[in-house]
Amino acid sequence: MKPSRVLETCLYVDDLEAAEEFYRDVIGLTFYAKVPGRHVFFRCGDGMVLLFNPDVTRQSTPPLFSPHGTVGDGHVAFHMTPDEIDGWRDHLEGHGIEIEQEFTWPGGGVSIYFRDPDGNSLEVATPQVWEMEK
Amino acid sequence: MKPSRVLETCLYVDDLEAAEEFYRDVIGLTFYAKVPGRHVFFRCGDGMVLLFNPDVTRQSTPPLFSPHGTVGDGHVAFHMTPDEIDGWRDHLEGHGIEIEQEFTWPGGGVSIYFRDPDGNSLEVATPQVWEMEK
Repeated sequence: MKPSRVLETCLYVDDLEAAEEFYRDVIGLTFYAKVPGRHVFFRCGDGMVLLFNPDVTRQSTPPLFSPHGTVGDGHVAFHMTPDEIDGWRDHLEGHGIEIEQEFTWPGGGVSIYFRDPDGNSLEVATPQVWEMEK
Repeated sequence: MKPSRVLETCLYVDDLEAAEEFYRDVIGLTFYAKVPGRHVFFRCGDGMVLLFNPDVTRQSTPPLFSPHGTVGDGHVAFHMTPDEIDGWRDHLEGHGIEIEQEFTWPGGGVSIYFRDPDGNSLEVATPQVWEMEK
């Protein structure tokens, strides 16, 4: 058995309303569904990005839901193409988002790091970082 | 700006050696690289699954690396096709992995939940869970 892709990528946030606005308006994800106080879900390409309030999801009770939830700053990287690097830098700065660092990797590829409103570490990165063509 | 996909999905583990074996042999991901004690990286389709020791990555120092790291049980779901459901159940049980629950969603789609050696909540799910055709 070998999965062909990741279907759900998760982060945990304390402020779901701020997260909903940020991931929709700054990251550009497509809103899918939400339960106020518990989660907000987005589609990204052929996968999902799920943002949970860990105080709630840690209390989930099997068999309906499996409990999960973390504290601290998680990390997710989103794909960008090489010709989008300038666009992403301008876009983030235009939204008042501080760019934590921009890094060109020795093997090729560029990463731009920043934070979501909750402090999670986010990155837009070209696939060349991981030796992928596109 | 709108990313076409998630490029890096992360989980945090205390035991990187157990995680390396589990994600390679049970989940079937393709090993990419590791730094003992800090991380082990896998490829999954056109994305990456990154497992970090949060005790180390929380201490990362910009500008070389952005600090991140969580404690508690994270969650990731991997894609499976409808005709792989029986295969995944047998595969997990064959590896002695306890299936926490199996759930058929009202709108269609099937999820099988289990845990990695560190307690992170994992899932294999058909894309119909998220109203995707495949």
